[in-house]
Amino acid sequence: MMRLTRSYTFSASHRLNVPEYSAEQNQALFGKCNNPHGHGHNYQVKVTVEGPVDSETGLVVNPYVLDEIVSKEVVAHFDHKYINKDVPEFHTRMASTEVIGEVIEERLLAVWPANFPKLREIQIQETKRNSFRFVTSD
Amino acid sequence: MMRLTRSYTFSASHRLNVPEYSAEQNQALFGKCNNPHGHGHNYQVKVTVEGPVDSETGLVVNPYVLDEIVSKEVVAHFDHKYINKDVPEFHTRMASTEVIGEVIEERLLAVWPANFPKLREIQIQETKRNSFRFVTSD
Amino acid sequence: MMRLTRSYTFSASHRLNVPEYSAEQNQALFGKCNNPHGHGHNYQVKVTVEGPVDSETGLVVNPYVLDEIVSKEVVAHFDHKYINKDVPEFHTRMASTEVIGEVIEERLLAVWPANFPKLREIQIQETKRNSFRFVTSD
Amino acid sequence: MMRLTRSYTFSASHRLNVPEYSAEQNQALFGKCNNPHGHGHNYQVKVTVEGPVDSETGLVVNPYVLDEIVSKEVVAHFDHKYINKDVPEFHTRMASTEVIGEVIEERLLAVWPANFPKLREIQIQETKRNSFRFVTSD
Amino acid sequence: MMRLTRSYTFSASHRLNVPEYSAEQNQALFGKCNNPHGHGHNYQVKVTVEGPVDSETGLVVNPYVLDEIVSKEVVAHFDHKYINKDVPEFHTRMASTEVIGEVIEERLLAVWPANFPKLREIQIQETKRNSFRFVTSD
Amino acid sequence: MMRLTRSYTFSASHRLNVPEYSAEQNQALFGKCNNPHGHGHNYQVKVTVEGPVDSETGLVVNPYVLDEIVSKEVVAHFDHKYINKDVPEFHTRMASTEVIGEVIEERLLAVWPANFPKLREIQIQETKRNSFRFVTSD
Repeated sequence: MMRLTRSYTFSASHRLNVPEYSAEQNQALFGKCNNPHGHGHNYQVKVTVEGPVDSETGLVVNPYVLDEIVSKEVVAHFDHKYINKDVPEFHTRMASTEVIGEVIEERLLAVWPANFPKLREIQIQETKRNSFRFVTSD
Repeated sequence: MMRLTRSYTFSASHRLNVPEYSAEQNQALFGKCNNPHGHGHNYQVKVTVEGPVDSETGLVVNPYVLDEIVSKEVVAHFDHKYINKDVPEFHTRMASTEVIGEVIEERLLAVWPANFPKLREIQIQETKRNSFRFVTSD
Repeated sequence: MMRLTRSYTFSASHRLNVPEYSAEQNQALFGKCNNPHGHGHNYQVKVTVEGPVDSETGLVVNPYVLDEIVSKEVVAHFDHKYINKDVPEFHTRMASTEVIGEVIEERLLAVWPANFPKLREIQIQETKRNSFRFVTSD
Repeated sequence: MMRLTRSYTFSASHRLNVPEYSAEQNQALFGKCNNPHGHGHNYQVKVTVEGPVDSETGLVVNPYVLDEIVSKEVVAHFDHKYINKDVPEFHTRMASTEVIGEVIEERLLAVWPANFPKLREIQIQETKRNSFRFVTSD
Repeated sequence: MMRLTRSYTFSASHRLNVPEYSAEQNQALFGKCNNPHGHGHNYQVKVTVEGPVDSETGLVVNPYVLDEIVSKEVVAHFDHKYINKDVPEFHTRMASTEVIGEVIEERLLAVWPANFPKLREIQIQETKRNSFRFVTSD
Repeated sequence: MMRLTRSYTFSASHRLNVPEYSAEQNQALFGKCNNPHGHGHNYQVKVTVEGPVDSETGLVVNPYVLDEIVSKEVVAHFDHKYINKDVPEFHTRMASTEVIGEVIEERLLAVWPANFPKLREIQIQETKRNSFRFVTSD
């Protein structure tokens, strides 16, 4: 079993804020990430699929088809957006990078081709010092 | 003459929009950078000073003092801000990375110590694919 | 158990083409990777071994011996070659990066010292956007 | 379950030498890493925690608290030190990067908050070509 | 005057060989870069333009127009090609990275818009250890 | 005129200390860089030569000969050393990175081949955040 990882980027902004908390509570918990008009990052998303190497083509997956799916479901959905306001899933959910990862998984699984190898792992790097990674659920 | 370059980062968001233009003109010129609620980047700022190597200390400049100045005038001023709204200089100026560079130069020169070597160059990297650099004016 | 990863590079070229397919089929499947005279990459290979830390030397493996093995079996075998024509294993196998990974594993296991920790993982990065990784078989 | 990885750096020097070995044995085993006055690296430490995403805050862990712990227990303990002489744990243990990793794990686990997600993995990069990684023990 | 640098990549292969030299001379001069079927790289091209910041738009140049020009004249011209055979300019010129840089300059200057800021510098990185840079001629 | 830059690395340690200063003065000026047993870095040295492109070979310089010179005069001279004690030039000079750069220039110019293009620039990166660069003297 081989894992192929392809990397994508988008630039977006977000704000961490729990509506049920007071301004003081939000500030104490999130610090400058709670600033009222948000701030931004160059996010890097790595999508990993896992499967056998096809004996005829030598490939795990057709990379052009994978790129098409991720470009449509992830890059176009988040790029150059203020995630809290411009991305519908976040009108009711926290715009933390953890939850951004969960939404990316949901969006990819919803359209994942039946003949594709398993979506194995998603990683999001927010800055060079900060990244999130998880094994996707079945 | 030796040049010392030190690198700093901040995460912020901005929007490109000329108030005098119509929505269509702004969209045609700036594309997704004109999206209404902004988007963000991990900006990397490189500050270069140029001077002789001190024969006693072996240094061009005291790096701790330089870091203190840049941290206060640049990093704290821009980090985790929506530049268009939260950074006063941009209430009347374009929040393009080019102008962000000019404002950084103005802010550094306003407090530059008399005994410091010359501020030689400022470089701002917006993404890995896009950076701006200029020789500072005297 | 500790994992040590060491990184190696080689520059090579390859072409994706299934001899049994028509020119149209190959072009449809592989796109520009099927161009007739090949194209190239700076490949980065990461070799991971896993074992206990020796209580006397503090090491998992002698890195000089590991480097000697990988330099001979991998770097010298692929560097500055057109893989399809110049590397014997690929006269009968696809020159995809997936299969390059399998051949690297075979070559390393064939000479792996009995007293060495387990060869745990091989990773090949083709470009900054594209990498392959697999747990080696026993 | 989500894994959050945060990255830290320190600059230090070390020397590989087994006191019970002769000078010739040490030189044969460690090569230039045995040079008598040590040599240095920019070490990069990645600390990975694993836990569920909090449904209210959207976070796996409070990153400010994690940074405070790692800054105190790791960065301040190793930064700008000659590890063999200046870091007490290494008066009786090998200053190999493998053992540095073990000491980092011990120091973090000793102060790990009860309400924190599990410390999942520690990675130390010594140079761009050389890194160590291990799953932490329970 | 501000300099904007934008970065582009292509993957290609090349071979260093002077037809007038003997096989021994070519091998002595170019070493493994003379291997008969070529080898490849992930080339990174950085294009720098220099001009004043437009007081209305805050821009040095429209980046979308610049990207369109470089994508057509450089990326599409070299990407996934064996430069010696597939890129016409190199049927009669050396496929060294130095000359690739000169050809890129010629191709860009031939279509450079009259209202564009000056093409100031071209840089080509062949590997992380090897890059070429020159100020463009007028 | 084309500039070729090649990159080299060495790992070493150093200490900043002016013998004529008191311990307090040294500590105040250099901070943790004054720690008594030194600390280390992975230094990256970039050597830039500038000259015309040879019309026959397509090269600015023979890279194998350049590598041989820099490996002998720079890498072997500094790698895995405690610069203050193990590198003779620093028995009487400050081991700051600025002065390391000056010593590298002196060593390269002392053996620079008469038929080589001009040594144009030397850059030393101490950490990702800190680098030094200078135009070499004639």
